[in-house]
Amino acid sequence: MTGELSAMPDIDPASLFVTRTAKPKVPPPAKALVFGHTFTDHMLAIPWSQSTGWQAPQIRPYGPLHLEPSSTVLHYAQTLFEGMKAYRDKTGKVTLFRPDMNMKRMNKSAARIALPTFDGDALLDCIKTLIRLDAHWIPQEVGHSLYIRPTLIGTQKAIGVNPPNEALLFVICSPVGPYYPTGFKPVSLMATTEYVRAAPGGTGGYKLGANYAPGVVPQKEAAKLGYSQNLWLQGPEHYLTEVGTMNLFVVLRKNDGGVELVTPPLDDVILPGVTRDSVLALARDHASGKQPIAGMTGKLEVSERPITMKEVKEKAEAGNLLEVFGTGTAAIICPVNRIGYMGKDINVPAGQSGIGDLAKAFLQEIQGRQMGTIPSEWSVIVSE
Amino acid sequence: MTGELSAMPDIDPASLFVTRTAKPKVPPPAKALVFGHTFTDHMLAIPWSQSTGWQAPQIRPYGPLHLEPSSTVLHYAQTLFEGMKAYRDKTGKVTLFRPDMNMKRMNKSAARIALPTFDGDALLDCIKTLIRLDAHWIPQEVGHSLYIRPTLIGTQKAIGVNPPNEALLFVICSPVGPYYPTGFKPVSLMATTEYVRAAPGGTGGYKLGANYAPGVVPQKEAAKLGYSQNLWLQGPEHYLTEVGTMNLFVVLRKNDGGVELVTPPLDDVILPGVTRDSVLALARDHASGKQPIAGMTGKLEVSERPITMKEVKEKAEAGNLLEVFGTGTAAIICPVNRIGYMGKDINVPAGQSGIGDLAKAFLQEIQGRQMGTIPSEWSVIVSE
Repeated sequence: MTGELSAMPDIDPASLFVTRTAKPKVPPPAKALVFGHTFTDHMLAIPWSQSTGWQAPQIRPYGPLHLEPSSTVLHYAQTLFEGMKAYRDKTGKVTLFRPDMNMKRMNKSAARIALPTFDGDALLDCIKTLIRLDAHWIPQEVGHSLYIRPTLIGTQKAIGVNPPNEALLFVICSPVGPYYPTGFKPVSLMATTEYVRAAPGGTGGYKLGANYAPGVVPQKEAAKLGYSQNLWLQGPEHYLTEVGTMNLFVVLRKNDGGVELVTPPLDDVILPGVTRDSVLALARDHASGKQPIAGMTGKLEVSERPITMKEVKEKAEAGNLLEVFGTGTAAIICPVNRIGYMGKDINVPAGQSGIGDLAKAFLQEIQGRQMGTIPSEWSVIVSE
Repeated sequence: MTGELSAMPDIDPASLFVTRTAKPKVPPPAKALVFGHTFTDHMLAIPWSQSTGWQAPQIRPYGPLHLEPSSTVLHYAQTLFEGMKAYRDKTGKVTLFRPDMNMKRMNKSAARIALPTFDGDALLDCIKTLIRLDAHWIPQEVGHSLYIRPTLIGTQKAIGVNPPNEALLFVICSPVGPYYPTGFKPVSLMATTEYVRAAPGGTGGYKLGANYAPGVVPQKEAAKLGYSQNLWLQGPEHYLTEVGTMNLFVVLRKNDGGVELVTPPLDDVILPGVTRDSVLALARDHASGKQPIAGMTGKLEVSERPITMKEVKEKAEAGNLLEVFGTGTAAIICPVNRIGYMGKDINVPAGQSGIGDLAKAFLQEIQGRQMGTIPSEWSVIVSE
């Protein structure tokens, strides 16, 4: 899609220049962290223009962007982002979790809304430099991490609905605490039949800003009814798609006594989540016997297949709905204990500890790989 | 939706303060204008916060906004806008066209994505002050106008997907030339079966930034195939919905020899366009005999009803597809002469002058009311 730009300069980590802040801040105590409210001393910014391609990456003090009021991002939602986490263990080693997945997805998102694509490895190189510079901001406490937010916006200074002739890629970093500071807390879902998150032919399969603003009011309405999040459905069949801003998994007991782990197929409607992909990979390696998950016994069938509310309801009534959980970078695994649907509640077992056995097993497997206690090629070293 | 904020200050035109630019620019010659590229000397800005409500409106020199990189508009597409035009006649009188419709729609858009609502009359008051200050920027040439772009963005400085605790309403103004500088030029449409603009339960009925970025790539793909714009379809029935960023009208010859003017019903999927509403009102007043349109003879039936590509194709094959046109603030009326659908072209009559009789009649009626040659309550005086 950006073939016409192929001769233009791509992101070049060798031309990265760093301007250090003159006023370094003191990172707040880990306990005081609120998600997304605190940012580190520095940010990465890489301008792009149609006539020059990607310009020299800059690491500079965290601070405001000066955007013309005509900037297309402010009018036409020319924005996309990624969410990834850096972890620091007790030895000081800093790692990222599957960052190549984020770079690939970011490029897919960019192509979908005619923003410039780029060399993902080159961007990752620049991000690593930024993380190393602000590494002392990464809390070392278990479950804590540095949330990294690469963002790409259209900055054309003229209000036309076109591929923008200017863009800005920036990366900011926010130290974050654990999603469950006081033990697991399963969430309740409101299966909305009034709003949709995405439709076939739309943008649900891409991490675009445009997918997020429309979800806030449905979320408020769910909260008013006493539910934590929306369960997004699709089509007159009420196919399950996503949970709030997370992917969705359902665990069913089969007629033969086996267990089926179900997640809806992507089909360009569902966000290709990194955690979703990780759960599927772990589950398939377990199911095939390649790498059994500790403590997980019995037969497991892994299905990427459509699943309707009718099926979920019937399975629940028959006592065969075992678990429901969301997956995402923020919570990793988020257990569900209740689904409101068409005026009635479907109860979902969530175990005595607030999380089902399968959900807990996946959480431990992923956390172990993120924190380095389980060696894995998914963990990418930033600094030792 | 903002009931909890009802005790907070609304927009107050009495507290508006004006900072004039120290460096006024010289408006470019009308002939040199390119849509959305030139902005006037001043802009209007009205900050809002959850704790203070709407703050004092400011008119200040046009210039960059200083936005934190964490501003939610940059991540989650918390943005909506309006497009309206001010006209200046030869006597210097400045008018707006149905601005109350824009204020109402802007509030509906705000409520849909949990941005703060406001007193539309109060905002309009402030906009009128801005227009009077920069009135010398409005070209007096026929067909020229000042395009006014009110925009509302979420500026919360923390990256959470929530109703933002800060927002900014700003208004910028751009002098624009006529849409057809050298006579009518009908456009060709590519009826896309690959992409959708909006779906039931989505945001198609609101003027949100989120509806625009996703349309750029489909538009590029239509252009590659030799079409000017996309014709957006909906559902397996291929209902016609919109054209590019315009509403859509189809003119059919009925079996009884009468003429039917068809536009799809809003149904929360289609943008409630001001020009769409104006065409419908003019057509209904003509049909009822209340106010016949000059030169329009014969019976006219006005229908807001669903219409499928199957029907359009069949009518065209029978010689009963008389006209297709888009309506919007930029072009007012945009005639269509060809629709690409499922690999074949449907030809649409567009008249010898490039515009059909009905389309031309509506254009003249609306332009007359905008320019003041046809007295109308739709024309609102800004300054005499």
